[in-house]
Amino acid sequence: MGTPTILSDLGTEILIPICAVIGIGFSLFQWFLVSKVKLTADKPDGKNVLNESLIEEEEGINDHNVVQKCAEIQNAISEGATSFLFTEYQYVGVFMVAFAVLIFVFLGSVDGFSTSSQQCTYDSSKQCKPALFTAIFTSISFVLGSVTSVISGFLGMKIATYANARTTLEARKGVGKAFIVAFRSGAVMGFLLAANGLLVLYITINLFKIYYGNDWEGLFEAITGYGLGGSSMALFGRVAGGIYTKAADVGADLVGKVERNIPEDDPRNPAVIADNVGDNVGDIAGMGSDLFGSYAESSCAALVVASISSFGNNHEFTAMMYPLLISSVGILVCLLTTLFATDFFEVKTVKEIEPALKNQLIISTVLMTIGIALISWIALPYSFTLFNFGVQKEVKNWELFLCVGVGLWAGLIIGFVTEYYTSNAYSPVQDVADSCRTGAATNIIFGLALGYKSVIIPIFAIAVSIFVSFTLAAMYGVAVAALGMLSTIATGLAIDAYGPISDNAGGIAEMAGMSHRIRERTDALDAAGNTTAAIGKGFAIGSAALVSLALFGAFVSRAEITTVNVLTPKVFIGLIVGAMLPYWFSAMTMKSVGSAALKMVEEVRRQFNTIPGLMEGTAKPDYATCVKISTDASIKEMIPPGALVMLTPLIVGIFFGVETLSGVLAGSLISGVQIAISASNTGGAWDNAKKYIEAGASEHARTLGPKGSDPHKAAVIGDTVGDPLKDTSGPSLNILIKLMAVESLVFAPFFATHGGLLFKIF
Amino acid sequence: MGTPTILSDLGTEILIPICAVIGIGFSLFQWFLVSKVKLTADKPDGKNVLNESLIEEEEGINDHNVVQKCAEIQNAISEGATSFLFTEYQYVGVFMVAFAVLIFVFLGSVDGFSTSSQQCTYDSSKQCKPALFTAIFTSISFVLGSVTSVISGFLGMKIATYANARTTLEARKGVGKAFIVAFRSGAVMGFLLAANGLLVLYITINLFKIYYGNDWEGLFEAITGYGLGGSSMALFGRVAGGIYTKAADVGADLVGKVERNIPEDDPRNPAVIADNVGDNVGDIAGMGSDLFGSYAESSCAALVVASISSFGNNHEFTAMMYPLLISSVGILVCLLTTLFATDFFEVKTVKEIEPALKNQLIISTVLMTIGIALISWIALPYSFTLFNFGVQKEVKNWELFLCVGVGLWAGLIIGFVTEYYTSNAYSPVQDVADSCRTGAATNIIFGLALGYKSVIIPIFAIAVSIFVSFTLAAMYGVAVAALGMLSTIATGLAIDAYGPISDNAGGIAEMAGMSHRIRERTDALDAAGNTTAAIGKGFAIGSAALVSLALFGAFVSRAEITTVNVLTPKVFIGLIVGAMLPYWFSAMTMKSVGSAALKMVEEVRRQFNTIPGLMEGTAKPDYATCVKISTDASIKEMIPPGALVMLTPLIVGIFFGVETLSGVLAGSLISGVQIAISASNTGGAWDNAKKYIEAGASEHARTLGPKGSDPHKAAVIGDTVGDPLKDTSGPSLNILIKLMAVESLVFAPFFATHGGLLFKIF
Repeated sequence: MGTPTILSDLGTEILIPICAVIGIGFSLFQWFLVSKVKLTADKPDGKNVLNESLIEEEEGINDHNVVQKCAEIQNAISEGATSFLFTEYQYVGVFMVAFAVLIFVFLGSVDGFSTSSQQCTYDSSKQCKPALFTAIFTSISFVLGSVTSVISGFLGMKIATYANARTTLEARKGVGKAFIVAFRSGAVMGFLLAANGLLVLYITINLFKIYYGNDWEGLFEAITGYGLGGSSMALFGRVAGGIYTKAADVGADLVGKVERNIPEDDPRNPAVIADNVGDNVGDIAGMGSDLFGSYAESSCAALVVASISSFGNNHEFTAMMYPLLISSVGILVCLLTTLFATDFFEVKTVKEIEPALKNQLIISTVLMTIGIALISWIALPYSFTLFNFGVQKEVKNWELFLCVGVGLWAGLIIGFVTEYYTSNAYSPVQDVADSCRTGAATNIIFGLALGYKSVIIPIFAIAVSIFVSFTLAAMYGVAVAALGMLSTIATGLAIDAYGPISDNAGGIAEMAGMSHRIRERTDALDAAGNTTAAIGKGFAIGSAALVSLALFGAFVSRAEITTVNVLTPKVFIGLIVGAMLPYWFSAMTMKSVGSAALKMVEEVRRQFNTIPGLMEGTAKPDYATCVKISTDASIKEMIPPGALVMLTPLIVGIFFGVETLSGVLAGSLISGVQIAISASNTGGAWDNAKKYIEAGASEHARTLGPKGSDPHKAAVIGDTVGDPLKDTSGPSLNILIKLMAVESLVFAPFFATHGGLLFKIF
Repeated sequence: MGTPTILSDLGTEILIPICAVIGIGFSLFQWFLVSKVKLTADKPDGKNVLNESLIEEEEGINDHNVVQKCAEIQNAISEGATSFLFTEYQYVGVFMVAFAVLIFVFLGSVDGFSTSSQQCTYDSSKQCKPALFTAIFTSISFVLGSVTSVISGFLGMKIATYANARTTLEARKGVGKAFIVAFRSGAVMGFLLAANGLLVLYITINLFKIYYGNDWEGLFEAITGYGLGGSSMALFGRVAGGIYTKAADVGADLVGKVERNIPEDDPRNPAVIADNVGDNVGDIAGMGSDLFGSYAESSCAALVVASISSFGNNHEFTAMMYPLLISSVGILVCLLTTLFATDFFEVKTVKEIEPALKNQLIISTVLMTIGIALISWIALPYSFTLFNFGVQKEVKNWELFLCVGVGLWAGLIIGFVTEYYTSNAYSPVQDVADSCRTGAATNIIFGLALGYKSVIIPIFAIAVSIFVSFTLAAMYGVAVAALGMLSTIATGLAIDAYGPISDNAGGIAEMAGMSHRIRERTDALDAAGNTTAAIGKGFAIGSAALVSLALFGAFVSRAEITTVNVLTPKVFIGLIVGAMLPYWFSAMTMKSVGSAALKMVEEVRRQFNTIPGLMEGTAKPDYATCVKISTDASIKEMIPPGALVMLTPLIVGIFFGVETLSGVLAGSLISGVQIAISASNTGGAWDNAKKYIEAGASEHARTLGPKGSDPHKAAVIGDTVGDPLKDTSGPSLNILIKLMAVESLVFAPFFATHGGLLFKIF
């Protein structure tokens, strides 16, 4: 037995669920605050309304028509999103059941479906539960992870569509009020997801423990299914949502803005509802599933690696639960951080929005550093033993603190670099905007160059955190570094969700025919949201790199190989083919968006040409057909990229074996992370370069504008190209690298036993 | 001693130089044939002219003014190119001397500048020459490689600028005649470079042998400098040439074609001379240096690996010279292949151009397969021993034949896939053209997706050839597979050089005011040239991947490490940072082209706005200022990317040591090859999508055209974006991966002795 931990096992058993419940409670409280903004057209003599109209002096506060119109539009968006997600979940549900059966069959076959106990892998003096039961429990945890992921995405969407019209209405009272509503709604989603993910994982572990008892090796092997479930749902959510939203967005923009010269989100545009639905199913539901997946995977990676450590072997529950404790503390820290934005300080002007969001990142990181130090001190023994590919490694608790900390701070650095390259407050985006002077071609060239360049510092940050955590605490170090980066996930998600909510709020204002001033306010919220969305993607990608490496390490341990030598043909071909997969995947998703957008363009053009009175606003467009085009395209087109990601590890593992699969995982990781970062930053930069010209806030920006000028048109083209890069290909790539790693990990015993058929034959 | 080879050592000593001399002779003969097209305005009563005008019935044959104008323009281009190359070589010369000194100091310091013999590395029972002398000889071979590379590029440029106006003049007589001139000129360059490279290498080996005697380990270590020299010059040539040509091209197009609506290569465009000079210094001189570098490096890689094999140890000269014998046979095979295009068959119509060029690839590959079989049979012992990272490996001569063959055929597959994705005869490019219907944005999205997709099959082809050659004959197998891919280099270069020559011929026709029919003929030649240029780049990239791997393997052997384990922090951070380098490099080169193009645009606009009568053709533009902008930009901007590539191995090796450096090499290799392929194919596809619309050869194409239509404008934007991708970033990336590998190889003993300072300190 190692030195005992300060926090007792009972304390741990209580602390984790309490934190989760606090998170959920806080989330509900935020929801309650948001719900106070009434969407029903209150009678004007209501006391509340009177009070507020005394405080603020803005137009349209008491305009019933506007309120009603907003409510109607919100309903339309919400219904569209719900109906799409249900369609998506039907397909995904079939996949889920089929894959759960596959997991059972493959893992059960490892030991020939025998029901007798077997020798443990790492401690051969002990007896572990039969592989058959681990197969069953892995399937169960896979389903649990899938369902939690789906619920996370769905709830996020519901919250967002609940909040968007409310944000619009608050924008009548001023930018600060609108900011609070959008931000609070983001927080609802952030806290609900973080707490929910933690709680389900915690309950699952405790329930599985009833069967597994002291066989923690088997227990946490089975738990890896949770990560796989979470991540595979995230893949479909991201890809389908991404195709949906960008097909609609690109299609709407190409005809509406470029050809017909009508503003964004104009109600005359037939694709406008599809576009707004897309924001909610892509950016909100997709991203919710994605970050939940990252969280689930990094927890699983840490747990499975820890299960063979000294505290795993000695069944020290508190130390074992260290990853979940970090997340628990994270919820408390984020709660405090949120108050800084909503209660301690107030956003009053447009200029204060971005700093307020940025401060959230800084505050949460600083507070979390203290939190991690505390939890490392009370929850870990002073010294413990980890296993590093067959070699024992002595680790101190402060070393593990450094691992988590380096991940956390690397995340902040990635966030800031991303902000620098995608915010129009700095020279990179301004240079891109300036290049629009000579047309769309130079805009594209500069934008691509910006994306490539923006990769440099994040990669160094990731490399340093890998080096430090890997050196100090082997793969467990890398896993907890990933958890460190994700420990402030509630705040990260809140900021992230804030963006599409503001975007939608602007859309609703436009469609409800609200005044130009209100649209300007929501645009300002949205511009800040673009940058924060890029920051969120930076976090997602950075953490994905760490998570994948940790999962990869866990896979290698479990597949019982000790070296992955680049200088063997098996590994090298894996590396080079693995590095190609992100390109293949991006080719599919980009082409899907392009084709769907072409169909959308044709439909929108058709409506403008054939519906009399549409341009004049006297006739209503046929929104439903556009929604259907996006839905059909995204459901159909999510299957090939999904199959590529899900099948590659299976095919490589079965036919080429674990060494080539190791190569594929490493190759896709190191190549995918670069494309993902550059794609999302390029897209973000183009979007904000366009907004920079539109806003015309500086002397320089005004020389490029106004809307409709040649440079502005060039900027719109860049923005359109960037859409699939930043919202479809880019963010899906981090799921690709994580998912292939976690899938390999889950199937590792199968591949180790039955894999490598081709090499066995020849 | 192994079994003796059929070919005696004396036979080898004779065969290699004879083949080289035959190559040079054939090249000179082709030049003589090209020179028969007179550029001086012959008197109309000349018999030859009369005769020809009897055979052909075309306009302008006897128009003295046209001939004279063509001669003038050719002179202007040739002078511009010469003056630029001399400027470039001044800077590069300084670098060359400095780096030669650096090599001497670093390698000399390995053994403390001692002049006494030392134990050999691989066979410790023998005495090898002192490190100090190997340092001297490495510096010498570095200078020799550099000078050969520079001469190759320069001669190529001279030939191309000699041939372009001649091609234009022949185009008056028909497309077949013009094709022959352009193709013959390409062959002049191809054979001269291939034979020259072989001869210099052969002489150097024989001269160095006088000093080294039986110390072949030291001898071939010193020879690696030749590869480093060739490749470092190629880097500067490619980058500087690429920036030069694309700054001019983009600048000329953006104002001329897009704003002023004047045709490409219109003499009124002030950037037109710079544009045509650019083709010669970028596509011709740059590419010549590049492929020479690949050839030199793969030969060096094979030789240095072979020096520690059984025939290296036993000093079997013929077997040792196997790599050079392959190249020798390659020259003969390519000679025969060329005759198929110039003598055995005749190109009569536009439709026959592309098949004729494609047949060159097929014929040379088939013939070369026989050639390799023959040389493997007569020049190799039936069985011999190789060393594979400390392990001995028994190899049969037919296995080595398979290694060379798999590389050769993989090259052909890559060529055909490239053709499929970049020729407008197939659906991928037609789809891209079709997407122009909805504007530039969808064009860019589809083009990027096409580039990503085009990576898939080439990577599988490379992976298979690596797997086969690596498994059969370790790193020596990979090195000779690369040589196999490059064995038909003379034909490859001929086809490659044909493209820019035709491009220039079209430019000259336009500038000389020749008729529309002639321009159509040169355009047809040029469209085929675009595809072959993409094929050439495919070869260059594919062979670069194999060469880099072989160099990487040689580096690892020489640095005395036996495994490069991905699962160590030192290696992994190397991998992820290495995979980032191609992005960093591309960011620099793309931005350089963009900035230089912006300056060019401003200058061209300024001239159009301020020079009265320019648009009307009554005043001459100021070509010289545009030439100066391109020159200054390319010289200035080649330094940062050059420094990145040259310094990275040094910094990583010195501070982080050979393991991290191994990671960096592997990472940049597997990531760079993907970006390089996708960038060059995307660019090629956009270029040909534009040409597809312009040519209007099919019903579908005509619905998109004509020139000046909205889809055509969208296509021009795509083409412009593609320019830096396909001619600057993409082709430079394969030099990046090769050069870092060969540099690491040269400095391996230094890094092994003095490197890894950071880890030694901490």
